[in-house]
Parts: sequence; structure tokens; C-alpha cells
Amino acid sequence: AETSVTLYGIADVSIRYVNTSDGATGADGSRVGLANGAISNSRWGLRGSEDLGGGNRAFFRLEQGFNIQDGRASDSGRTFNRLAYLGLDGRELGILTLGRQNTVIQDLMADHFDPLTVGNYNENSWLPAAMGRVRNDNTLRYANTLGGLAMVASWANGDNWDDRKAGEQMGASLRYTVGQLGLGAAYQHTRAGTDSSARQRVWNLSASYQFDSAKVFAGYFNGRDETGWVNAVMGGTTTADLERKDNGYFAGVTWQAGGSWTLTGAAYYDRSKNIVVDGDKGRRYALVGVAEYALSKRTQVYGTVDYNKVSDAAGGEISGRSSVVGAALGMRHIF
Amino acid sequence: AETSVTLYGIADVSIRYVNTSDGATGADGSRVGLANGAISNSRWGLRGSEDLGGGNRAFFRLEQGFNIQDGRASDSGRTFNRLAYLGLDGRELGILTLGRQNTVIQDLMADHFDPLTVGNYNENSWLPAAMGRVRNDNTLRYANTLGGLAMVASWANGDNWDDRKAGEQMGASLRYTVGQLGLGAAYQHTRAGTDSSARQRVWNLSASYQFDSAKVFAGYFNGRDETGWVNAVMGGTTTADLERKDNGYFAGVTWQAGGSWTLTGAAYYDRSKNIVVDGDKGRRYALVGVAEYALSKRTQVYGTVDYNKVSDAAGGEISGRSSVVGAALGMRHIF
Amino acid sequence: AETSVTLYGIADVSIRYVNTSDGATGADGSRVGLANGAISNSRWGLRGSEDLGGGNRAFFRLEQGFNIQDGRASDSGRTFNRLAYLGLDGRELGILTLGRQNTVIQDLMADHFDPLTVGNYNENSWLPAAMGRVRNDNTLRYANTLGGLAMVASWANGDNWDDRKAGEQMGASLRYTVGQLGLGAAYQHTRAGTDSSARQRVWNLSASYQFDSAKVFAGYFNGRDETGWVNAVMGGTTTADLERKDNGYFAGVTWQAGGSWTLTGAAYYDRSKNIVVDGDKGRRYALVGVAEYALSKRTQVYGTVDYNKVSDAAGGEISGRSSVVGAALGMRHIF
Repeated sequence: AETSVTLYGIADVSIRYVNTSDGATGADGSRVGLANGAISNSRWGLRGSEDLGGGNRAFFRLEQGFNIQDGRASDSGRTFNRLAYLGLDGRELGILTLGRQNTVIQDLMADHFDPLTVGNYNENSWLPAAMGRVRNDNTLRYANTLGGLAMVASWANGDNWDDRKAGEQMGASLRYTVGQLGLGAAYQHTRAGTDSSARQRVWNLSASYQFDSAKVFAGYFNGRDETGWVNAVMGGTTTADLERKDNGYFAGVTWQAGGSWTLTGAAYYDRSKNIVVDGDKGRRYALVGVAEYALSKRTQVYGTVDYNKVSDAAGGEISGRSSVVGAALGMRHIF
Repeated sequence: AETSVTLYGIADVSIRYVNTSDGATGADGSRVGLANGAISNSRWGLRGSEDLGGGNRAFFRLEQGFNIQDGRASDSGRTFNRLAYLGLDGRELGILTLGRQNTVIQDLMADHFDPLTVGNYNENSWLPAAMGRVRNDNTLRYANTLGGLAMVASWANGDNWDDRKAGEQMGASLRYTVGQLGLGAAYQHTRAGTDSSARQRVWNLSASYQFDSAKVFAGYFNGRDETGWVNAVMGGTTTADLERKDNGYFAGVTWQAGGSWTLTGAAYYDRSKNIVVDGDKGRRYALVGVAEYALSKRTQVYGTVDYNKVSDAAGGEISGRSSVVGAALGMRHIF
Repeated sequence: AETSVTLYGIADVSIRYVNTSDGATGADGSRVGLANGAISNSRWGLRGSEDLGGGNRAFFRLEQGFNIQDGRASDSGRTFNRLAYLGLDGRELGILTLGRQNTVIQDLMADHFDPLTVGNYNENSWLPAAMGRVRNDNTLRYANTLGGLAMVASWANGDNWDDRKAGEQMGASLRYTVGQLGLGAAYQHTRAGTDSSARQRVWNLSASYQFDSAKVFAGYFNGRDETGWVNAVMGGTTTADLERKDNGYFAGVTWQAGGSWTLTGAAYYDRSKNIVVDGDKGRRYALVGVAEYALSKRTQVYGTVDYNKVSDAAGGEISGRSSVVGAALGMRHIF
């Protein structure tokens, strides 16, 4: 059958204020400037699907993220950094996809349980990004559904010839939907790309409930990380051989407020251990609010505010201060 | 409303002769080889527009330049190096665009007053490229029209946290059209990306007149540059803390010569000061001729010749000689 | 006339086993992991064509290869690394194309005489890739057909200003088709990119015969290489000023086996001289089998096995062993 190729994407730009620097020197580097979207990163891609008969389908997706403010690729080393996969949908037999894909935790958060669908600023996305690792190369993924139960299992090989297990990732997720209630669970095991003995292990439980015009969300992450990934996302510095432990919580609500308005509030809280030295403890939380006005189904303008606070051993996660205040006005166009 | 995404671009390739080297050693490095287009750089892009009702529109544009001779990106660091923006057209309220965009001078020259619509070889584009800086990141731009008066104002932030004004650019342009006469004026103020105290300031006046089958153009640039940009475009070497001053003039004519032929002649002249040492003076001029034959509305073949001459302190702008002769045969296809 | 732009490509992914390392240390680095396609590299592109009247056409093609397993560009330095050209088809006058294009040997092998249409793993493509150099920048190419005789001639300039002939490539090919028999011949002369005195010279003779449901192929390459290209493709190390000589042979068959199955067998054999030191001799051969099952015209699943063996002075072409066994399961989708 004929393949239909669709060109699609999101152009999302914001004018962002933050009151701290990401540079080494600027303790008071508050700044206003153009930035990528607050919640959705700008992207473009190709996707297609072919009917193979009997309800079976072949399909592919290739997607690149970019900065609309400067035209740069989100990942300068990858043409299709967000998604690059080929799949077979065998109906009752399930769906097999191969390529660069979201992790099982990322999909659970972005599509179902994070009140912000995983944000796009560091300040509003650090918890799910640190715990879920967003996406991974070399992924073989199987998904199926039994009534209200959706199951995903994934395996990804690394790229290291001498330490063959280095870079390997295994993940599994379950999602159960009954009426307005959604429940999710996931486990992910990742080995560092150059050393298979350093691992990140994360498990997660989440829930959502759909009221008439509001949806509420909550979840918990339990993370242990020897790979340095969590420190990289959080903004800290990794100490070799230290197993960072995180207990992360989130909750939020999205309200269809009428008159084309959608209001979202979200809170993220993380208790961490072994951040800089063995046995230290830290805390971090973030509060985020978003007000979105739909000019059409495909075009929205929005305002957002965010507040992050770090304390104790997590204090180094923000450069030169213990808190960051951010705000932005933006516009998103889906094509 | 549904967004229509359009895939578009230009494939332009030329066989180019030049009689000087861009290498350090080759005083007599004349050469024939494939090159990008003489006037238009090869490019591809995505653009779309959505009707928001009441005549209002959301629109975006993403565009990458490339070398058709070797498949390389024009700017290896950017996916969409030419344009990446999202905009809102509010009719009488004007048009707001955010992202990577042309400077106000570049748009004035490319769309209205440069007889070559800003060329694509160094040898035929140096004056408007040096004075106008072509395009810029992080740009917030507002445009509106009052009768025959078109106004554009733009502001762009830099990317430097410790020197917040570094990289900032402000620009404004006016264009007035009355009958066959067009008049343009622009001012642009740019701070160097790493040092806000180094600035480029340029103002410009231009005019065009449309006769029956010919259009004539003329203009003047007044430029002062401490950022090193002008020396980089011109081919010279920047001396720290030196404020280069340029008085640039251009004039030309485009003639629809009948029988699918278009003939263009253009002259560029620049008197410069403070090029290598404080107080020195230089001169440079270029003469360019283009003959274009349209195979269709979208496909043209062309021939072009160009002559550049430098003297006095501007002598170092051409490697190893005081003049360059170039010529090319090419083909352009707009898709 | 209106240009129709077509978005097209191939998504091809395989799960690959090989029992040797491409790393320096791993003599026994067998591994299973996701890889690009076995035969066809994943790619996407734009192409278009415009009718200029009288049967004449302008056309272009822009194509990028990528790894579906990790989203990376096949060539990180090029946006359109596979093809970037603009052309004019003048019917009886022939076809002129300018840009980055396949070499004449690559086109002969990929479209007509290699039983694998030039494979995509190193292990199944080394002979035609080493002899034909795949593709080249800055290429001016002319093609025409006289009855059953297809002729191609190409010239490409280099990019070196001080040694103007460095990087130059000239090639010519003839292909004659009579009934079920196809005959091909080609010659290619390439100068190293930085030193015009180092050359690769290759000539080739090939034949194919189409039986009812099977097609058989055979061919011979005679190669002399001072540029280091052959050693780079083969996996060895280049010794300066050494002219490597290769006598390469290939043969194979493709059988439309019925029931949506296509079976292909191919053998490649190379006798080489002057590989590491002047006067040494080496041998290498590869056996490849592919079984392909068509889910549709555009989607296939396949299995492949390959065996490579090196001996004598070619022994260094495989890291740490004298043979490699590879196997893969994969899926290709053409869009």
C-alpha cells in the first residue's frame, strides 16, 4: 500500500526571565531573553504509516528538536535526536519498534502522569528528566494492551565493544485505566555508557484522576544513580563511585477553565542522599504555574512562573544562590 | 484551523572561476570549480500559516542554507541557519515575529534596494553583508504598514550571562513607496557577543525607481565597527580596540531585456578608515554584471562576471593581490 | 511549470550479530546490537522535477543518510551527504547534473551489477566501496543513451587552492543491454584531496544475465591506489608512498523464489599487493546470503549472514582475527 508521509512539528518560542546564571561567575545573573518553549521543545519531523492488510501496519517516525531562537539543533550530534524508529503493529500481537525512542518512564510521564507532560525548561522538568533519562539509542521495544492494561517492555544495547553491557538499558512499564482513574508503574535499569558496573535504577508509581473539567496527578520516584546522570540534570557535580539516592514526589492539577483558558499547577519535591560526599543529604523543590490561552486548536499563547529552591547538600545544584525565580511569556504553534 | 505545511527551497549551483586564492599562500591561485549560487544560496525549508479568524494569522518559517556542490550546511552549527521564527499577524495591529531572523538592513537590501538582492559570493555581497550583518539570533521583531510607509523595529538579546548586553542588537527601518519611487532608511546597533563595549553602528539611506522595463537603485551606508565583523566579511584582520569606519555606496540597474532575458549591473564602493592601524585609510570597489535567462518562472540559467579592487590600507582584504576577477555560469531552480 | 516536491526515504533497521570488534583491544568482541540496514542505509530526502516544455526537464535531489538506531547523520559534516544536485534533462541532448553525486562506478554497481546493489555493512560492501569510492563532491556529470548503450562521463574538482588538481576525479562508464544480457565497463581516476600526485585508478568490467526468475551477476575490478582510500575501507593502515594494487572479483545470484521471497547469494574476492610494505601480498574474500520476505511492495523483513576471511598481508584488515562471522535480522520500509 502507498505510504503517506506527513511533515509535522511544533514551533514554540518564549521570552524568558530567570534570576540566576547558568555561568560560573554570575551569582546575580538575572536576564531576559528568547528561549525555546516552556513546556514543549520546538521540533519537526516526518512520520508515515502503511496498511499491510489484516489490520497490521508498518510505521516510522523521525523527529528533530531545535531552538527556534537561534536555529540550532537541540542535540548537535544527531539529525533526528528526539525519535528515529521503524515499527510493526501486529494488532493483538502487539507493537514492536526499533530505533532511538523515549524511555518507558518518559512516555509514562509525558503522555499520562506528569502535570506538565514533562516541561522543557531545566527548572520545570528536572525531576522526570533525571529519573527517566528522556530517550535512548538502540532501543528494541514491545508494547501491548489487554483491556485497560497497557504494557511496555524495552531493551537497548550500548555502543561499547570492550565492555559489552556498558550503555545497556532495560525498562518496563504498566498502566491501568479504569473509568476516570489511571495508575502507572515503571522500572528502568541503565548502565553507564563506558562502565557497565555503574548503574542507574529507578522505579516509579503514579496516579491520575479525571474530574469534569480538572485532572489531578501524583507520583513517586525511587532512584539510585552511579552514572552521574542525575547530577548532570540537576546541575550538580558528580563524585566518582558515589551512589546518589533520590526520593522524588510530584503532584499537580490541570483545569480547563473555560473561555479557551487552561490553568496548570505542579509541584516537584526531591530528597537526595550522597550528592557530593557519601552520607550527605539534600532537598530541592519546584513550584510551577502555567496559564494557556488557545487562539485555535493548534496555536496557544501562554504565561508561566516557576520557583526552585535547593538546600543542604543539594545547594550546589543552582549556581550561586539557593533559589531561582523564572517567568515567561510564549507562543506555541502545532503544525 | 488546519495548518498547511509547505516544503520549499532553491537549488542553485554555479561553475565558478576566480583568479585569486582564499588560501594563505596562493597569490596566483586561479581556479575553476563548482560553487553555490552566484546570487541566491541553495536552501530548503518548511513554512506554514494558520488562519485564526478576523484576518489574524499564526505563521512560522524554518530554513536551512546548504552547499549543493558538497551537501554541507552553510552553517554547520545550525539546523535552520537562515530563518527560524514563529509569528502572529494581527492585521492593523502589525506583525510580531520571534526567533532567528534577517536583520532590518538585510531585509531592506535583499527585498528592495540592493540591485543584486544581496549576492551570494563574497565578491558580490561584501558591502551589504558587512554593513547589515545578514541575520541574528534571539530576535523580537515588529512590523507594520501605514499606507505607503513600512516600518520595522527589532530587538535581539545576546547569549552572555556575565555581560548581559553583549550580543544585543537593535534595529529599525523605514521604507516609503510613492508611485515608482521607493525610499529606505535604517539604523542598526549591534554589540559584540562577548564584550558589550564593542559595538557596530550602521545607518543607511537607499532609493529605487521603477521605469518601464528597468529599475535603478542607489544607496549609502555609514558604518562604525569595533566588533571585527566588517573585517571578517571584507577579508582583513581585526586589530583590537580599533574602530573601523566605512562610507559605502552602491548603485545599479536591472533591465527586463525581453525574450526571457534579465540583465543586471551593480557597483559597490567603500572608503574605509582605521583598518589595520589607527588613522589609516583604504578603498575598495566591485563591479558586477549578471545576465539571466529564464527557462521557466522557476528555473533560470545565468552568467555573471565580477571585478574587485582594493587599495591603500584595504589592500590586505584580498589575498596576495590588489584585484580579483571572477566569472561563473550557473543554474537556479526554485521549488 | 509548478515543481512538485516529493519527500521520500527508507527506514531500515537491523539487529546485528558480529563476532569481532571494531575496537583496538577486543579480539573476541562478539556483540548483538541495533544497526542500520544490512543492504540499504536509512535515508530521507527531497526531490522534484519541472517540465520545461519539449520534453526537457529541470530536476533536483537532496538526500541525507542517517542511523535509525541513534538518529545520527551518516556523515556528521554534511546535511545532504548522499546526494545534492541540480540537473537539466535535454532528451536527445542528454542529462547534465551538478553537485554531490554518486561516482560512475557506484551507480553501475548499485543499479546494475553488484548482486547486493552495494551492501551497507562494511562486511558486505567493502569491495565495491573501496574500488568505486561511493560518491564525490563538486561533480559535473553528463549522461546519455544511444539505443541499448548508456554512457556517463563525470569530472569533479577538488577543494585545494594551492594544489589545484588535488581532489580531482574523472570517471566514465558504458553499459550495454541486449535482451537479457547486461554488460558494463568503467574507469575512474581520483587524486588525493591534499596531494594531487597520489592517485587512485580503477577499471571495471561487469556482466549480468536475467533468467526467468533469477538474475546472475559477475564482475572484475583492477585497482591501484596511492590515496589510502582502499586501506581505509578495508580496515587496514596506510603506509605513505605505497601503491596498493587490487584484483577484485565478484559474482552472485538473485532469485525471486516465489511466495514473496527473494534469495540472494554473493561472493567477493580480492587479491592485493603492497598493503603494509612494498611487495607484500594478501587475500580477502566474503560470502553473503540474504533472504528477504516482502510484507508489501514497500516493506520487507529480511535475514542475512556474512563471512569474511583475510590472509597473508591483508590479515590486518580485521581486528584481532582472520575471519568475521556476521548475521542480522532486519526490516526495511520505503516511503
